[in-house]
Amino acid sequence: MSFYLPATVGMPLAEVDTPALILELDSFERNLTRLQASLSKSPVALRPHAKSHKCPTIALQQIRRGAVGVCCQKVSEAEAMVAGGVTDILITNEVVGAIKIRRLIALAQRAQISVCADHPVNVADLNLAAHAAKIKLDVLVEINVGADRCGVAPGAAACDLAQRIHESSHLRFAGLQAYQGGAQHLRTTEARRQAIESACEKVRLTQQCLSLRGLPCPKVTGAGTGTYLFEAASDLYTEIQPGSYPFMDVDYARNDWTESAMPGFEHSLFVWTSVMSVTPPDRAIVDAGLKASSIDSGMPEIYGLSQARYCKASDEHGVIALSNGFSLSLGQKIKLIPGHCDPTVNLYDHFVCIRNDRVEALWPISARGALL
Amino acid sequence: MSFYLPATVGMPLAEVDTPALILELDSFERNLTRLQASLSKSPVALRPHAKSHKCPTIALQQIRRGAVGVCCQKVSEAEAMVAGGVTDILITNEVVGAIKIRRLIALAQRAQISVCADHPVNVADLNLAAHAAKIKLDVLVEINVGADRCGVAPGAAACDLAQRIHESSHLRFAGLQAYQGGAQHLRTTEARRQAIESACEKVRLTQQCLSLRGLPCPKVTGAGTGTYLFEAASDLYTEIQPGSYPFMDVDYARNDWTESAMPGFEHSLFVWTSVMSVTPPDRAIVDAGLKASSIDSGMPEIYGLSQARYCKASDEHGVIALSNGFSLSLGQKIKLIPGHCDPTVNLYDHFVCIRNDRVEALWPISARGALL
Repeated sequence: MSFYLPATVGMPLAEVDTPALILELDSFERNLTRLQASLSKSPVALRPHAKSHKCPTIALQQIRRGAVGVCCQKVSEAEAMVAGGVTDILITNEVVGAIKIRRLIALAQRAQISVCADHPVNVADLNLAAHAAKIKLDVLVEINVGADRCGVAPGAAACDLAQRIHESSHLRFAGLQAYQGGAQHLRTTEARRQAIESACEKVRLTQQCLSLRGLPCPKVTGAGTGTYLFEAASDLYTEIQPGSYPFMDVDYARNDWTESAMPGFEHSLFVWTSVMSVTPPDRAIVDAGLKASSIDSGMPEIYGLSQARYCKASDEHGVIALSNGFSLSLGQKIKLIPGHCDPTVNLYDHFVCIRNDRVEALWPISARGALL
Repeated sequence: MSFYLPATVGMPLAEVDTPALILELDSFERNLTRLQASLSKSPVALRPHAKSHKCPTIALQQIRRGAVGVCCQKVSEAEAMVAGGVTDILITNEVVGAIKIRRLIALAQRAQISVCADHPVNVADLNLAAHAAKIKLDVLVEINVGADRCGVAPGAAACDLAQRIHESSHLRFAGLQAYQGGAQHLRTTEARRQAIESACEKVRLTQQCLSLRGLPCPKVTGAGTGTYLFEAASDLYTEIQPGSYPFMDVDYARNDWTESAMPGFEHSLFVWTSVMSVTPPDRAIVDAGLKASSIDSGMPEIYGLSQARYCKASDEHGVIALSNGFSLSLGQKIKLIPGHCDPTVNLYDHFVCIRNDRVEALWPISARGALL
């Protein structure tokens, strides 16, 4: 529940109240175009991750430009996407627990839904629920390709689970979820390339094992904004899942992209904030703290002002250090580049969409807080 | 917008879906009672900070037990509190910008509202708006007592601003805001005591200066859960503003409270989470990551399970390290103690209120996301 909107359509950016989550539409759209262009010679399908934007309006734009659907992390996120008009969703996660599985199955009766599994008990639960609803559910085996989070071991263990899915009356083995989350923010291009090479080895091993058992593997899906060109060029992955490329953030900007074919994605997402205190000359306080810009991956950066540095966040305040006699004035509005886009978006109910310094639209972040 | 509720009233805790924000009512109520009891011999008024709970239901309970009103950090937070029935609010912050000041004044026409200032331009803006609305607005001077955030320097600078407020046709100088935020999490009782002693020196200096100018100072307000007993015993502060004491969190629990009269506040706030992956034997993955429990002050802790440690958070996952052959089962639900209660509460739309392992109520967190 947001008690007020920070903007209305048609308002000049200068009048937008703060803190607000600003989306610069020109750079946002260029980012969408750049990603599609970078895949023009690749056979992989694009299925962007909606956990980053949580906004069906953005999902539909990605699909209109060629994406085959979107990914979600949570059933409730997928519900928000379906409610917003998205018809093809991969839940890149395990769905565990009776209530969630019931909702997953209900959703699969209204849209193309696939889900991941990494445990035979979960597979049995999914089959039982699909059976009760008289549907056939697409299930991928998640394999651990190095992120050490969810996922079974590649090779025989993965094949055992795939076999079990294949033999379940109301499930269809849909392929492998093979996301190397740990590789996305390795700083050098070479380190990211090596991490994905190692992930590919694990996919290849698993595919060989599946092939020996005569199990077809229709899909291999994974990849993020930091590595997707490697997966796309692998001849193994059939689908990629980047999420942050429409926005970028400080953490992704810290990656070294030289010797990489990565297109030059621009920052399009900003926290619009006001200077609310200027008492000592070498410091200014802004009204966006850690409830306005997530600091899990470091502090936000200040856009376009090299002599001002966001150095400390408390709940509702940001401390800006000023150097070389530079000053900010009371009430001055500035743009912050979020440290990490996903959890920052999750703090807001709307994107305030800006073109030519004017509010063009407000897009609801309808899966904000969709944790279930 | 939350797409589903994690619980319904009457449901056993075991059935509550995850992640959910659980409030254990018995310990929550004991915390409220303990704080009031610890002030029984003190003349200070209690004005708890609502930035921690963002919930008018909780604010009204605090007021029913003797609080004089609540504090807010944002105008929109105050609007949510007034909408929920709270009638006396101190905004412990500067309100800068025409739109926000207009809303502040509109609110002050419907409830007892006071606000802080640390700049003469802001004082002039407040006076102009109060004049237009034909009201007299209570304004406190915020002084910097060591937190180095907002606030003018104690002494002459603070008195100059107080004088300016006093001489403004539609403002009333209401006293000093003197919050030492930097002291709350100093780990030893002695370090916190010294930090507040130093803050008190700055208050005393400012009061002497005000007195010399014949300016009455009706109120000195400040203090948090970590230090409030020192401010309460100071003979300077007339009002205290603790916010976290109803809940507690990992960060506050890390403070050393020995040789302190601090009552034994209990953890009452938890993130209820499910085990969603158990693939390697020494690790479990839960469905509450950093979008479910803020990690700005460190990882959450696992309640009541000493052989399990929450060691890493990604957006939607938490990695639990298991020791000594201890294991967790797929679907098992456990309680996390949030690292930092305020930003964790801000991720949810409801408290799921539990008594005797059953859902007694759902309390809307109606100021969730109230950033403006």
